[in-house]
Amino acid sequence: MTVPRPSRLALALDLGGTKVEAALVDPEGVVVPASRFRAATGPDCTPERLRAALQEVVGRALAERGDAQLVGAGVGSAGPIDLRAGTTEPVNMPGVRGFPLVAAVRALLPEVPVAFRLDGTCIALAEHWVGATRGIANSLALVVSTGVGGGIIVEGRLLGGSGGNAGHLGQMRIRGRAEEPGPVTVEELASGPRTVAWAREQGWSGEDGRDLSRSAREGDRIARAGIERSAAALGEGIANAATLLDLEIVAIGGGFVDVADDYIALVQRAAEDAALFDYARRVRVVRSGLGVDGPLIGAAALIHRAELLPSA
Amino acid sequence: MTVPRPSRLALALDLGGTKVEAALVDPEGVVVPASRFRAATGPDCTPERLRAALQEVVGRALAERGDAQLVGAGVGSAGPIDLRAGTTEPVNMPGVRGFPLVAAVRALLPEVPVAFRLDGTCIALAEHWVGATRGIANSLALVVSTGVGGGIIVEGRLLGGSGGNAGHLGQMRIRGRAEEPGPVTVEELASGPRTVAWAREQGWSGEDGRDLSRSAREGDRIARAGIERSAAALGEGIANAATLLDLEIVAIGGGFVDVADDYIALVQRAAEDAALFDYARRVRVVRSGLGVDGPLIGAAALIHRAELLPSA
Repeated sequence: MTVPRPSRLALALDLGGTKVEAALVDPEGVVVPASRFRAATGPDCTPERLRAALQEVVGRALAERGDAQLVGAGVGSAGPIDLRAGTTEPVNMPGVRGFPLVAAVRALLPEVPVAFRLDGTCIALAEHWVGATRGIANSLALVVSTGVGGGIIVEGRLLGGSGGNAGHLGQMRIRGRAEEPGPVTVEELASGPRTVAWAREQGWSGEDGRDLSRSAREGDRIARAGIERSAAALGEGIANAATLLDLEIVAIGGGFVDVADDYIALVQRAAEDAALFDYARRVRVVRSGLGVDGPLIGAAALIHRAELLPSA
Repeated sequence: MTVPRPSRLALALDLGGTKVEAALVDPEGVVVPASRFRAATGPDCTPERLRAALQEVVGRALAERGDAQLVGAGVGSAGPIDLRAGTTEPVNMPGVRGFPLVAAVRALLPEVPVAFRLDGTCIALAEHWVGATRGIANSLALVVSTGVGGGIIVEGRLLGGSGGNAGHLGQMRIRGRAEEPGPVTVEELASGPRTVAWAREQGWSGEDGRDLSRSAREGDRIARAGIERSAAALGEGIANAATLLDLEIVAIGGGFVDVADDYIALVQRAAEDAALFDYARRVRVVRSGLGVDGPLIGAAALIHRAELLPSA
């Protein structure tokens, strides 16, 4: 199949704890085939290595541009970020805390506008643009994988907050399992690695989320209890957000969502159980409508759908 | 002192669990002297009695209008509400659940626009208009008295949510005191009556918040512990909201704030202790800049400052 190359493309960048990715994204929210490149980051990443990685993935993605016009670069980053300063303070990469991400991208692309946001808020934009929350005014998008991240859309526009960090649902304290002395946040109770660690503490002997999923399918009670524990915490966090924000829908993506066929249903039920008001209990919990390209599509939305940003 | 009567006035209405109040409010956010009237509601309130109370307070307030123009009526209500239906579902008045508040006010004032919002969001508007959060883009306003209510301003505009119920911070579940099996929400741990009840369970023998305040000032340890317990819960709720919304400032009003001279300072410290990210830890906790007229001023803001509403 030959697809006519679109004429206006955004360069999308997604900086995470393990990798930085770049791709070209068209005005319909589609990643241009073969324009997606990644380079490793990781906990030992230094500013020099991050600069080199950025240069590499940006250069390779841009080389796929053909004769299309580059209309801007959208940058999503693991948080927290400092939106005004254009810097990132990623929890999982202490060596690049304060890295001037916007300035580094501007140096590579001096001729186009560069827009910058928290990765969770990019996901929320992508869900709102082409995913599961399309056409809905008040939504939350969550990612459950190594951590729990999120982003919020209110009245059809991004909720950024004063420094761009709104959406960090994973770091909310919840009641959780009051009898467990340690974990207090949604992320500590719901993330993939934390759930695996909890199951191992209970005597389960697998290694990762994939093992956990398989064990649960095979009837292992501890594995299943871990999955339910994760869903309960996520549901409680969602109930809190729905109570505070009066949301209509929550879309959940990320690798851990596939841990059980009924994970989304478990989260929905937990949210209903935890919410005290009917309006919060009515929030719909659905699976993300995005594939693996979600973060890049969301970064591109910062350019192609700039009217969704609060400053627009 | 003779004050020239302003030419454009809003009628403000505030429906709460114990009373309904009305007043005329000028375009500067000042309640017109002698235009403020109240009638009792209470847990046994019926639709008929509420209609009669509304008619009474609206009629008496309007009689103070002189030759000024009435430009609209702003109505705040205890929650939850149904914004689209224009109805109220107040927790503390089961007899008037589903009461068509907007239609009832329209029937009394058929010639002017009627605007309607949750009481907590009215407070947030009032703080943003003439109170402690003036000029600040991202804020939360809280009231701590018989319950814990709130409202949110984001990017200088009201955050209403899908049905107008955003701001219900009191019904968020928090970690709280995990060793206490019962209470799980901010309100259950922080409100005036709940704090008094807790102190009595610990052996303190006073009756109300005033007694609690006096006992604490006189060195009673249980009374002081109750106040600190309330502040800790409120701080934890604030930390959650600041984490999720990236707020700059939180203004706290309501009768229970005066329970101790350092109550606001205790809440600020608790919020800092509970927040995991620096950006959330930086949220400033301040005393409300509103007097007792806050709810009425906020209801009037629905008319005089309609540009702050998200639908504007």
